[in-house]
Amino acid sequence: MRIVVLAGGIGGARFLRGLKRAAPDADITVIGNTGDDIHLFGLKVCPDLDTVMYTLGGGIDEERGWGRTDESFRLKEELAAYGVGPGWFGLGDRDFATHIVRTQMLAAGYPLSAVTEALCDRWQPGVRLIPMTDDRVETHVAVTLPADDPAGTAAGAAAQTAGPGERRAIHFQEYWVRLRASVPAEAVVPVGAEQAKPAPGVLEAIAGADVILFPPSNPVVSIGTILAVPGIREAIADAGVPVVGLSPIVGNAPVRGMADKVLAAVGVESTAPAVAEHYGSGLLDGWLVDTVDAACVERVEEAGIRCRAVPLMMTDVDATTRMAREALALAEEVRSV
Amino acid sequence: MRIVVLAGGIGGARFLRGLKRAAPDADITVIGNTGDDIHLFGLKVCPDLDTVMYTLGGGIDEERGWGRTDESFRLKEELAAYGVGPGWFGLGDRDFATHIVRTQMLAAGYPLSAVTEALCDRWQPGVRLIPMTDDRVETHVAVTLPADDPAGTAAGAAAQTAGPGERRAIHFQEYWVRLRASVPAEAVVPVGAEQAKPAPGVLEAIAGADVILFPPSNPVVSIGTILAVPGIREAIADAGVPVVGLSPIVGNAPVRGMADKVLAAVGVESTAPAVAEHYGSGLLDGWLVDTVDAACVERVEEAGIRCRAVPLMMTDVDATTRMAREALALAEEVRSV
Repeated sequence: MRIVVLAGGIGGARFLRGLKRAAPDADITVIGNTGDDIHLFGLKVCPDLDTVMYTLGGGIDEERGWGRTDESFRLKEELAAYGVGPGWFGLGDRDFATHIVRTQMLAAGYPLSAVTEALCDRWQPGVRLIPMTDDRVETHVAVTLPADDPAGTAAGAAAQTAGPGERRAIHFQEYWVRLRASVPAEAVVPVGAEQAKPAPGVLEAIAGADVILFPPSNPVVSIGTILAVPGIREAIADAGVPVVGLSPIVGNAPVRGMADKVLAAVGVESTAPAVAEHYGSGLLDGWLVDTVDAACVERVEEAGIRCRAVPLMMTDVDATTRMAREALALAEEVRSV
Repeated sequence: MRIVVLAGGIGGARFLRGLKRAAPDADITVIGNTGDDIHLFGLKVCPDLDTVMYTLGGGIDEERGWGRTDESFRLKEELAAYGVGPGWFGLGDRDFATHIVRTQMLAAGYPLSAVTEALCDRWQPGVRLIPMTDDRVETHVAVTLPADDPAGTAAGAAAQTAGPGERRAIHFQEYWVRLRASVPAEAVVPVGAEQAKPAPGVLEAIAGADVILFPPSNPVVSIGTILAVPGIREAIADAGVPVVGLSPIVGNAPVRGMADKVLAAVGVESTAPAVAEHYGSGLLDGWLVDTVDAACVERVEEAGIRCRAVPLMMTDVDATTRMAREALALAEEVRSV
């Protein structure tokens, strides 16, 4: 069985670990979000790709969910001693090696997809991990900074220079990590997405898939960004195979992270059925909601999307494996209709 | 008193620590060797400048003589896990920050001299540290690699691709650190020196100096490389002030390092008077040799260079301070002639 998964960071990576257990013989291709990639200290950092790679390769810090296990932050402390920031982004000493190798390979002319493959040679994640695109896409968030904001910003291609109290576009990481989504996201824009091409292998993997899964990743800044690359959404809709998603919203709140903040920016309420409707029946064939949201199954099905209520808390690998099995079961149910 | 010092790495840095003690009110400008700079992992590394900066700024690992105190090497281990080398060059986690900041500033368009000044803002070395040039100069060593050599090489601009047993030019760091000068240096070439210009402030400092000192640094690959930048040797000769050096050779062997290996390449015997004659009376006014070499004082003076025999082992800061005092005393003796 060939499974294609669109993945963001922590949620996607954890779901994939369960999926590998649920379908040990499957050929899994992961299309990774690169919209939250960021240049820091002259290095190219790909948080979502690395989270998937480290999680599946056994190198992740389990507690934090991102970065390397047994990590230290001495280099970052030294950069701060030089007055070089940003200090709000956590780059560990071991993690730095990944960004240095990536940056060197990119500088040597390799596309990000080839670099990612080379990095995975070490980590052996057990899936084929492909960035959604080799082109630069950078998710920006329009916000009005509070008047007392220090207004430090990561270098975003389209970031505007503005003082506190003014509306400005900031890099997604600055919104997510520095501001912790503490101000409303007025708009979310995957800058560069319209001009981006799917990376080599992305459309082929989708066209050859038996099942396509949307893990409980952020529907706006993770899966939404992947779908914003021209050709990917169409390829999924045209694949003619079951497309099944898992709700990242449980009981009207995100399971993890701050998905509600960016859902508001795109006018979607923070509920399991609303996210399904946001994807739409033209894209999504099946949708898993948590048992606490069982009451909304009918609403999702009325939108033309088959829906089941099952436990959706990824408390451990066993629970996650059961979720992946449910997703695959729903896919087979959809297929047999 | 304005003192100009030409400095390499460890020897120069330790001498400078003594000089600061010997002449606490002096205005000291250090012209640093950049010929052994190297690009590693996409980063610009300036070993000699950093050794001076860390030593005078209190950040040096005293035992090794290079790199940061309380250092760890986790990032480097991770790079090795990715199969990315070279593994023979020691870059510590804390040290990496310096190279990252430097590389970022260079990429932003700042010349190395401005970058060095910015880095010194943190370290406050108590001297003005200027690289000999803002242009790229890279010392290469011609060697015949042994037949069993793995032939790994640092990326040198003029390095040739050749197999073991063939003559090739390798980066000075590869010769010094990887091979530990275990094969004869057939030639030493500061590639790019002929086209290099002294960095801003270098010629001005020399012209305004009251005394110019050559610490017991390597006369070929440290001080020799600085003198190879067109204009510097001439400026020193024309300054009309005492130029005093300290022999890095004591009892026919280098005090530290492997200076004898590269002296042979330029046809200079590894003795205190031979090094003085190599600099020449057109450049050098005074020369300190160690007490064990007292017998050669006459030979040096016959070459037209005033010479004194004093203890030249930099065993601690006190001993080094006495050496610096002797150098300044010899300078005054020369001046009063």
